[in-house]
Amino acid sequence: MNNSHSLNTATWIWYPGDFEIWLSNKMQVRRTEREAVFPPLWRYYSPYPLVTFQTEVEIPEDDEIKIYSEGPFQLLIDDVQIYGQPKSLKIEAGKHKIAFKVYNQEVLPAIFIDGRYVKSNASWQVTNEDKLWIDENGKAQQSGTPWMPVGSWNFDAPNKKPSEFQLATEPWEAKHAETINGGELIDFGKETFGYIKIHGLNGAGKLTLYYGESREEALDTEKCETLDNLEFDGSQDAIYTLEGSKAFRYVQVQKEDSLQYDSISMLYEYLPLDYRGSFKSSDAKLNKIWDVSAYTMHLTSREFFIDGIKRDRWIWSGDAYQSYLMNYYLFFDSQSVERTMVALRGKEPVTAHVNTIMDYSLYWFVGVYDYYLFTGDTKFIKTFYPRMKSLMEYCLERRNENGFLEPLEGDWVFIDWADGLPKAGEVSFEQMLLARSLEVMQVSANITGKAEDESRYKQLASELKNELFKVFWDEKNQVMKHQRLDGNIQDMVTRYANMFGIFFNYFTEEQKESVKNKVLLNDDILEITTPYMRFYELEALCAMGEQAFVLDEICDYWGGMLNLGATSFWEKYDPKQNDDEHLEMYGRPYGKSLCHAWGASPIYLFGRYYLGVQPTAPGYTEYEVKPNLGGLEWIEGKVPTPNGQVTLFCNTSEIKLSASEGVGVLIIESSVQPESNLGEISKASENRYQLTIQPNQSYQIKYKAL
Amino acid sequence: MNNSHSLNTATWIWYPGDFEIWLSNKMQVRRTEREAVFPPLWRYYSPYPLVTFQTEVEIPEDDEIKIYSEGPFQLLIDDVQIYGQPKSLKIEAGKHKIAFKVYNQEVLPAIFIDGRYVKSNASWQVTNEDKLWIDENGKAQQSGTPWMPVGSWNFDAPNKKPSEFQLATEPWEAKHAETINGGELIDFGKETFGYIKIHGLNGAGKLTLYYGESREEALDTEKCETLDNLEFDGSQDAIYTLEGSKAFRYVQVQKEDSLQYDSISMLYEYLPLDYRGSFKSSDAKLNKIWDVSAYTMHLTSREFFIDGIKRDRWIWSGDAYQSYLMNYYLFFDSQSVERTMVALRGKEPVTAHVNTIMDYSLYWFVGVYDYYLFTGDTKFIKTFYPRMKSLMEYCLERRNENGFLEPLEGDWVFIDWADGLPKAGEVSFEQMLLARSLEVMQVSANITGKAEDESRYKQLASELKNELFKVFWDEKNQVMKHQRLDGNIQDMVTRYANMFGIFFNYFTEEQKESVKNKVLLNDDILEITTPYMRFYELEALCAMGEQAFVLDEICDYWGGMLNLGATSFWEKYDPKQNDDEHLEMYGRPYGKSLCHAWGASPIYLFGRYYLGVQPTAPGYTEYEVKPNLGGLEWIEGKVPTPNGQVTLFCNTSEIKLSASEGVGVLIIESSVQPESNLGEISKASENRYQLTIQPNQSYQIKYKAL
Repeated sequence: MNNSHSLNTATWIWYPGDFEIWLSNKMQVRRTEREAVFPPLWRYYSPYPLVTFQTEVEIPEDDEIKIYSEGPFQLLIDDVQIYGQPKSLKIEAGKHKIAFKVYNQEVLPAIFIDGRYVKSNASWQVTNEDKLWIDENGKAQQSGTPWMPVGSWNFDAPNKKPSEFQLATEPWEAKHAETINGGELIDFGKETFGYIKIHGLNGAGKLTLYYGESREEALDTEKCETLDNLEFDGSQDAIYTLEGSKAFRYVQVQKEDSLQYDSISMLYEYLPLDYRGSFKSSDAKLNKIWDVSAYTMHLTSREFFIDGIKRDRWIWSGDAYQSYLMNYYLFFDSQSVERTMVALRGKEPVTAHVNTIMDYSLYWFVGVYDYYLFTGDTKFIKTFYPRMKSLMEYCLERRNENGFLEPLEGDWVFIDWADGLPKAGEVSFEQMLLARSLEVMQVSANITGKAEDESRYKQLASELKNELFKVFWDEKNQVMKHQRLDGNIQDMVTRYANMFGIFFNYFTEEQKESVKNKVLLNDDILEITTPYMRFYELEALCAMGEQAFVLDEICDYWGGMLNLGATSFWEKYDPKQNDDEHLEMYGRPYGKSLCHAWGASPIYLFGRYYLGVQPTAPGYTEYEVKPNLGGLEWIEGKVPTPNGQVTLFCNTSEIKLSASEGVGVLIIESSVQPESNLGEISKASENRYQLTIQPNQSYQIKYKAL
Repeated sequence: MNNSHSLNTATWIWYPGDFEIWLSNKMQVRRTEREAVFPPLWRYYSPYPLVTFQTEVEIPEDDEIKIYSEGPFQLLIDDVQIYGQPKSLKIEAGKHKIAFKVYNQEVLPAIFIDGRYVKSNASWQVTNEDKLWIDENGKAQQSGTPWMPVGSWNFDAPNKKPSEFQLATEPWEAKHAETINGGELIDFGKETFGYIKIHGLNGAGKLTLYYGESREEALDTEKCETLDNLEFDGSQDAIYTLEGSKAFRYVQVQKEDSLQYDSISMLYEYLPLDYRGSFKSSDAKLNKIWDVSAYTMHLTSREFFIDGIKRDRWIWSGDAYQSYLMNYYLFFDSQSVERTMVALRGKEPVTAHVNTIMDYSLYWFVGVYDYYLFTGDTKFIKTFYPRMKSLMEYCLERRNENGFLEPLEGDWVFIDWADGLPKAGEVSFEQMLLARSLEVMQVSANITGKAEDESRYKQLASELKNELFKVFWDEKNQVMKHQRLDGNIQDMVTRYANMFGIFFNYFTEEQKESVKNKVLLNDDILEITTPYMRFYELEALCAMGEQAFVLDEICDYWGGMLNLGATSFWEKYDPKQNDDEHLEMYGRPYGKSLCHAWGASPIYLFGRYYLGVQPTAPGYTEYEVKPNLGGLEWIEGKVPTPNGQVTLFCNTSEIKLSASEGVGVLIIESSVQPESNLGEISKASENRYQLTIQPNQSYQIKYKAL
């Protein structure tokens, strides 16, 4: 993994991706349904139980290294085995090859080496098959060893072991408690996540906790999705903290009379993250939407980016892809993106699509590209290129004789939760995602120096795009059709491929206009009811300059959830449903997740399409700022970049802007020639002006909004 | 795994091969060198941490099942989730689908289900990716799930958990103790394996155990291969048993005066196995050789068939292949063969040869075929055919442009430990093993019902054999050449391909005679000094009827080790070496293993070529008995078959024979027409007669040996 901290610090290291796979295995079985464990439906991979860490050093004087290991190890200095399991060792001045072979089948092999000169860090390499053998005469032989750069994160102390990883916690008090049905209903005031804590526990007997993201759920002892049955024998401590974490706002406590307690609190559990992005506007409701979105996003940004905190508590590639984008406008935490991408991809062999879903394999590739674009990091691609390639080969092998993906046995085509959405046969949406994924492979092959792969993927992408338009583009109506079944184009147009075609820039400007009017703004086209696809629908409209229209939609849709009392955003929201129905899903009265990452998309929309900031070259070395008020009086905020941020204020007559790094282009739409305190404003076209933004300068521009 | 016990018994079940992989990972890191852990050089695989067990039952009345699980589980009855983690459950009369999804990342997921009708056993199926998902409306969907038959062994009680597997132990007393160098030297009388036990321990201080397979090794505190440094603080129990097992005959104890003990004993650790095969003859030395071979074989038949008990304590495919063959003539323990084959093969993906050695991948295939031939079991092949195929594809991809295997980067060509043995380029021996492996794939594809694969492998085998003879067979000298380098046949003949060509039956009778005389009996050809290749050399000679010659060789070679005091047979023996040299190997004074499985080959040779028993159809449904006295007055013994044995006595005038199953052909070489108490003897050719052997009859034949 990309290691953001200095090579001068010793840190725990492991086989790249293995900590993430181990942790994701552990995390994803924490979903429960009424005390039944509910693990994912896809395959789990495992860390390599036996790996060899190696480094080559040249040290100016003798060094004394301290050795910490998760698992027994074999230590070789310059190919000579050191006897015993030393806790420290003197390394003599000079050049040395140092190798640790570590075994750990229970957790994962990891080491922490700390000397003055020799330190375990991201510069080490590791292999899962060292192939080092000693021949009959005692001579060491080694060839064909597949070395990889090690993985690491922030385990920078000997006692901060990867196997003991925990998120942070802090105590939270209840906001309200009321007696109900002979028990008690506790309200924490808003959606939250963590461990219930019982204070003043005394006596023996049974106690049950019924959790609810809604009051209704917590009160429904028969149907609430999660609960904990506890039993105490009287020997317990006065303060009891549950082992299992849950998502809830409310908890109902019912107990036997023989058992007493004073009060209930909780340990709020979270991933420590900086809120590096921000957004404020002249509209208080929008500000509230941004705040609740940010909270929703933080609740679902945990060990990994998960879908929802009550359910599924799993890593879904389609959901995570949106979390990545939101993250770039809120936390810009690249480690969380890497952890999630690695956990989703798993290892070899590829035997099913990511999460078993065709579209979710494809989002994974696009996520990798975005990571490169936003962070500028190439190490991830270089390290995991073989896993990118094997997943792509899996996808390519599943194409039909027309070169299109259509579901084979075991393939789930998701696209969206929508009644009457056809998913069989050749669906244009999937082909478009595959084309984009092939372009990602082309770029990644280039970064990795695989010229042959690069030209192959380039050709495949180009051929597929041609075929996509040839088959699905309706020349007469100038829209993308949805599906071909048994060779017959179906007379159906949906929003999916049409909106992706806009922000993938696969359409000409004329095509985009047609699609906007005939599909996106056409109420006869199958409506989108999940925040998941609302994300892309609104993005496409914003990309077409419809910020004012989108603001209204955001106010209606996310504002609608707030009006219903939402303290975090939901998995699904249909304004036409009545009160009880809002909690239902999957045939269960409280099946719906009321804190779902894909509900937080305003974070992304506000940052990218109102503040208008986006990278145009990897790692924000170049970027664009194109503020759009969307009818608001003013907006202001920050968009994080790898090592800083872009800070912007904009009203109808003034723009204030500064940035920490890179070279930006500010695009101003103005009815008059704008004036800047710095730099030179050039005219790009009618009512459109540009200003180059240098880092660490405060720009103040006078202009007149159109 | 093939489950030998009844389906009426509940047993722990797991994903097939996963227990074996887990256990082999654990076992193979138990090798130590002076307290340094010494793990294998090849990659480790892992059990699947998340699997779903499933069965369909139809039960005549309600059943109450008890549920035991290694790991938390999700239980679905008829696709409906049962809440909680029940310890027992009522299943109503009728047809049901029962599914347990079990998570265990630390060990391996396993369950034990016990009801009157519903029991976990070999009839269940399992998958590592169930792909069972619940759609938006709560409807279960599943397709493309790769189901496999479960694995099981003999864990037939709830508390006999796979994760707690232990070999059996029994207490052994020391044979002799003497004071030496201020400490004590304990002699257990013969090579053994287990845990040192210290009795009457008292006081505090340090104690060191120096182990030796030889007296010299145990006395050499600086150079002995294994040792244990212990420290006691005075609070220990009076009896202390070491946690780590070791191989030794001798152990030297040195300690501080502040610490006292009374005596040293050990816990002998072993796999409980029946000695179903036996051999006795008129020659006491041969009998002793058989006994020591059997003991050597038992010591190395443990969790798996390992190479040596001091070193490497690893599973090597070439070594294991010989253990399989010896096992068929001694224990006929099919479970041990299956465990070993599965552990060797690992899982997907294949990224290196088995043990990283080209020949060791190929022996693996031949071992699978032999398993089918001796046991008649087809379940192993049917279950693991995909793993057979992926390993074969790996091999095939590594062929050069001539269709021959030659080592690529990371490939180790072993063949044998022999000075001056060329291993580079195209070596005939490797091609011959590949041809035989392709034939195994042909048979296995047929068993698995893969007609297309079958014909492909058939053709590949036939083409390769043609090419092998075209390139390497020396028409003029009528021998197989050893090597082609850069297109040039090298002027070298070795024993390897020539002896395999005999018992693979790749040579015509004329070719065999030529090879016997020009290679096998030719002292100018590079000599074989390992019992490993002696195995095949002597087998080839026996297959050519040279039993008398081979007996002399056995007496010299194995008798030579006995004369030097061997109590188990060695990794390597060169009669020309002097005393100290016998212990050296790998550049270390006690590097040689003095108890090595491949040293036990007389078990196989006596059973197969003197008692003369071998299956001629799978599972001994048909077999051949061709006794050969090799110049001895008499021989007698038993050869195990799947459900019984063939019992034979033979001297120069009488043969007594009975068998438990199958139909045999007794082949008698006699100068007179033999007479039998049962059946009808027919004449096959000059001095050669045949008698069909029916099961459960006692045959007594009078004849006159040639």
